Amino acid sequence: MHTLYRDTVRPEWVDFNCHLRDAFYMLVYSFAVDAFMDHIGLDDATRRSRNRSLFTLEAHVVFLHEIKEGAAIRVDGAVLGVDSKRIHLYMEMFSDKRHEAVSASEQMLLHVDMTSHAKSAVFDPDIAARTSSLRSGDTPTGRYAGRVIGLPFVARPASGSGTEPA
Amino acid sequence: MHTLYRDTVRPEWVDFNCHLRDAFYMLVYSFAVDAFMDHIGLDDATRRSRNRSLFTLEAHVVFLHEIKEGAAIRVDGAVLGVDSKRIHLYMEMFSDKRHEAVSASEQMLLHVDMTSHAKSAVFDPDIAARTSSLRSGDTPTGRYAGRVIGLPFVARPASGSGTEPA
Repeated sequence: MHTLYRDTVRPEWVDFNCHLRDAFYMLVYSFAVDAFMDHIGLDDATRRSRNRSLFTLEAHVVFLHEIKEGAAIRVDGAVLGVDSKRIHLYMEMFSDKRHEAVSASEQMLLHVDMTSHAKSAVFDPDIAARTSSLRSGDTPTGRYAGRVIGLPFVARPASGSGTEPA
Repeated sequence: MHTLYRDTVRPEWVDFNCHLRDAFYMLVYSFAVDAFMDHIGLDDATRRSRNRSLFTLEAHVVFLHEIKEGAAIRVDGAVLGVDSKRIHLYMEMFSDKRHEAVSASEQMLLHVDMTSHAKSAVFDPDIAARTSSLRSGDTPTGRYAGRVIGLPFVARPASGSGTEPA
């Protein structure tokens, strides 16, 4: 994992309990993806000169611990997968108070050509090479990746029925 | 699906292209979950009097279309599953410009007792009954639910190798 981003939980990000609101975990990850773009060579100047950017197709966020206003936070990341146009990025968030992650996120990012209407585009070779260098490689990572949200559907027993799904 | 929330894309929510930034889709869903709490009887007064609330354990967001600053947005939702302490809530976001959804989210919400350190708690019967009334029932829903993020791991061809995964 590579450290992508550091920040401090801002007053406007917390709820009435002074805890970071769920959507603002996502904003911190959004800033970390901006920093990730710098890491792979898609910095602001390159994005403008080549008319390229990354769009988020999908984001999954796991909330493991609350974070208080004023807490220092850090986001580490690694590339779990990549193809010609897409990156599967995995991130974990840490706060100054805990050793273990306070949150994790995985995102599918699409490389787009902004010239017309943001069409998907193949990575330039230099960007692809830098992206590969951020791959998690042989180190196991992505502890909170690949998750599905679901609950067993607990049916209300029909009148007169003696059976109910466990 | 039940309409949970309506808003307008605010200037402070958009990126330099005047499109809603990914994290602010999540903020709109966060407001929609607040409204969902009202729908199931966990309104602010009840949350305070009973010391109960819902915490987001996990959130998945799919980004289908861009939304411009100033666009009217609506979030519809339905309960996909529920157990004694948790709700699997599914939501779709619509904008005034399109008939189809511009985004979808599914979230796992935990019912907590805020008296001490936010321990999980069984739903009160009135809340459980109102939650069940928002179940999607027999109508198929959750088109964008149950998704896993992943990419086939495309290995860089070894030097001298003529084969590469498709």
